[in-house]
Amino acid sequence: MQRGKTFIVSGPSGVGKSTVLKALFAQRSDLYFSVSATTRAPREGEVDGTHYHFLTQTEFEEMIGRDEFLEHAQYVGNYYGTPKKYVDAAMEEGRDVILDIEVQGAQQICAKRPETVRIFVGPPSWQELERRLTARGTDTPEKVQQRLQRARVEMQSAEEYDYLVINDQLEQAVEELKAILCAEHCRPADRLDRILE
Amino acid sequence: MQRGKTFIVSGPSGVGKSTVLKALFAQRSDLYFSVSATTRAPREGEVDGTHYHFLTQTEFEEMIGRDEFLEHAQYVGNYYGTPKKYVDAAMEEGRDVILDIEVQGAQQICAKRPETVRIFVGPPSWQELERRLTARGTDTPEKVQQRLQRARVEMQSAEEYDYLVINDQLEQAVEELKAILCAEHCRPADRLDRILE
Repeated sequence: MQRGKTFIVSGPSGVGKSTVLKALFAQRSDLYFSVSATTRAPREGEVDGTHYHFLTQTEFEEMIGRDEFLEHAQYVGNYYGTPKKYVDAAMEEGRDVILDIEVQGAQQICAKRPETVRIFVGPPSWQELERRLTARGTDTPEKVQQRLQRARVEMQSAEEYDYLVINDQLEQAVEELKAILCAEHCRPADRLDRILE
Repeated sequence: MQRGKTFIVSGPSGVGKSTVLKALFAQRSDLYFSVSATTRAPREGEVDGTHYHFLTQTEFEEMIGRDEFLEHAQYVGNYYGTPKKYVDAAMEEGRDVILDIEVQGAQQICAKRPETVRIFVGPPSWQELERRLTARGTDTPEKVQQRLQRARVEMQSAEEYDYLVINDQLEQAVEELKAILCAEHCRPADRLDRILE
């Protein structure tokens, strides 16, 4: 059995990353979606282990002390992070792991594990990203402009990524993700010992 | 329109590379298969421009002088080489180019054009490669052993390649080639300017 690999998927707010990932998981139930840990309180309907691994601040800080996170950060007074153990267990089972994570978290992970494959999901154009953010109807025009501003900063990081998937047509974006996962399992380092033995 | 890319496909005798490429081209008629140039005389049924570009020795050497080959070599008194012009014309049209070429030729091309993607087609095992070479029934047992010996040397080069496709099941090998072609078109350098403009 071939060991699984870890794939980071980043992308700006409004790009449709969640939709793309949902469509990918609908076709590839073998994939493991990494669930983050957090110290913030569960919201109504949130299930421990599904939406987040809910931890106390002490538990979280002890895990930091034992270097048990691939990445972690603080945000409005709470910790958020990616525990190593679930990721590693899934890879041991031969499952590929998908980490939905923003740019700074991706940088932390790749510093620790440079073999991690980084995929950035981008919009077809700025106009289209603005249109999508506006169409959601959840944000004020000012908030939409803030998100666009932040997207511009994040898009600057896309060139550090291994791949850039453009979410123009959903089906095409999913096909590209599947192709990237497949191609990354064709690296000589992972397969050569099978033949050369 | 996105510019095409060049993909080198190498692999030892008996691995089934031609079968895999034929199946790939049956599904992807947009691909361009690079035709070599040679100074050897056409054999019966060989068509100029289809099987080879047949050149005189003078023509070939003038092209070498003008640096018009991606790679070239001499073999039993004749020249063989890959003219740049057809490859470049196809890429300009947005077509991906497949070069069926052995390890030394691949090294020459990548020295000139490091962006070329290298794919090695390998056998599932040595036993299976020996079985396939024997099953062809065209070689003496001594010749089969020579080919196996040469395959062992070539397989040492597989680790220099970007990808290793194992031809165990034909359909799977073709799927992997298609995935590699697709994934390589998702590189940020090729797409980022579309968004950042």
